[in-house]
Amino acid sequence: MIHRKLEELLLEERDKLYVPAKNVAILLDSNTLDHAMLVLSQVHYSVIPVINKDNHIVGLISIPMIIHQIMNEGSKDTIHFSQLHKLKVKDAMQTDFPTVHQDTDFEDVLNRLVNHNFLCLETDEHKFAGIITRKEVLKRVNYTLHEIDKQCILTEK
Amino acid sequence: MIHRKLEELLLEERDKLYVPAKNVAILLDSNTLDHAMLVLSQVHYSVIPVINKDNHIVGLISIPMIIHQIMNEGSKDTIHFSQLHKLKVKDAMQTDFPTVHQDTDFEDVLNRLVNHNFLCLETDEHKFAGIITRKEVLKRVNYTLHEIDKQCILTEK
Repeated sequence: MIHRKLEELLLEERDKLYVPAKNVAILLDSNTLDHAMLVLSQVHYSVIPVINKDNHIVGLISIPMIIHQIMNEGSKDTIHFSQLHKLKVKDAMQTDFPTVHQDTDFEDVLNRLVNHNFLCLETDEHKFAGIITRKEVLKRVNYTLHEIDKQCILTEK
Repeated sequence: MIHRKLEELLLEERDKLYVPAKNVAILLDSNTLDHAMLVLSQVHYSVIPVINKDNHIVGLISIPMIIHQIMNEGSKDTIHFSQLHKLKVKDAMQTDFPTVHQDTDFEDVLNRLVNHNFLCLETDEHKFAGIITRKEVLKRVNYTLHEIDKQCILTEK
């Protein structure tokens, strides 16, 4: 269990932990892979969420996933760039990924972030609501580790 | 300042915080970009260190950096895949990046990791010694946040 006081500091201004959907670059599962390559080469994140026409999160996509997919479309050691405009994001995306909700315990968020650079945030209707990143969590951890020394006395048991 | 007890827990088994050089995928600055594309599409990390023939860290490289570079070699909206075998890793790599040493304060490590997915570790002779990742630091933070509750009493000032 995380101490109540530590959790309080970690979750101060909880809203700021999340990057809202409107500020996150996304792709549609029906986009072609050459469009995806262009988008992914211009955004700050190396992996971005994929949504479908109903605004549900259906996957994650990155340039390495795309390259991997077009290498699988023929002989393994060659990158088949001609396949880029024929294949869709849904052909290359990763579909196994964790999601969180607004009320997910911070402990679970932290645990899942050990293995993922960011987590997708869903509404109760499974709509895409934003992401929570390692960057924001590390900022908050940094703040908490400093603040605890100012606000509390730590005595060993 | 980070409280002494917190720093002690964060730095328990300090060696395990670092991934040693022998376990890190790297590229040479003289490798061609098509070789780099193949390596980057097969490794777990989206960005990897670049070293020169003297084993000094000279940059970081990712597939988006490569795509960006070959898009700059002509009209901006087209990806010029034919350039991949002509250009080298040194033409596309990022050369502005932070490094740390074995004795860098944990506080500085944490601060630098807010903006970088991993930090390169250098020896005193500027040789590449490994990396320290957000993943390992988050694992350690997780451990510390739980352990503090077991080992200490926290009283608000």
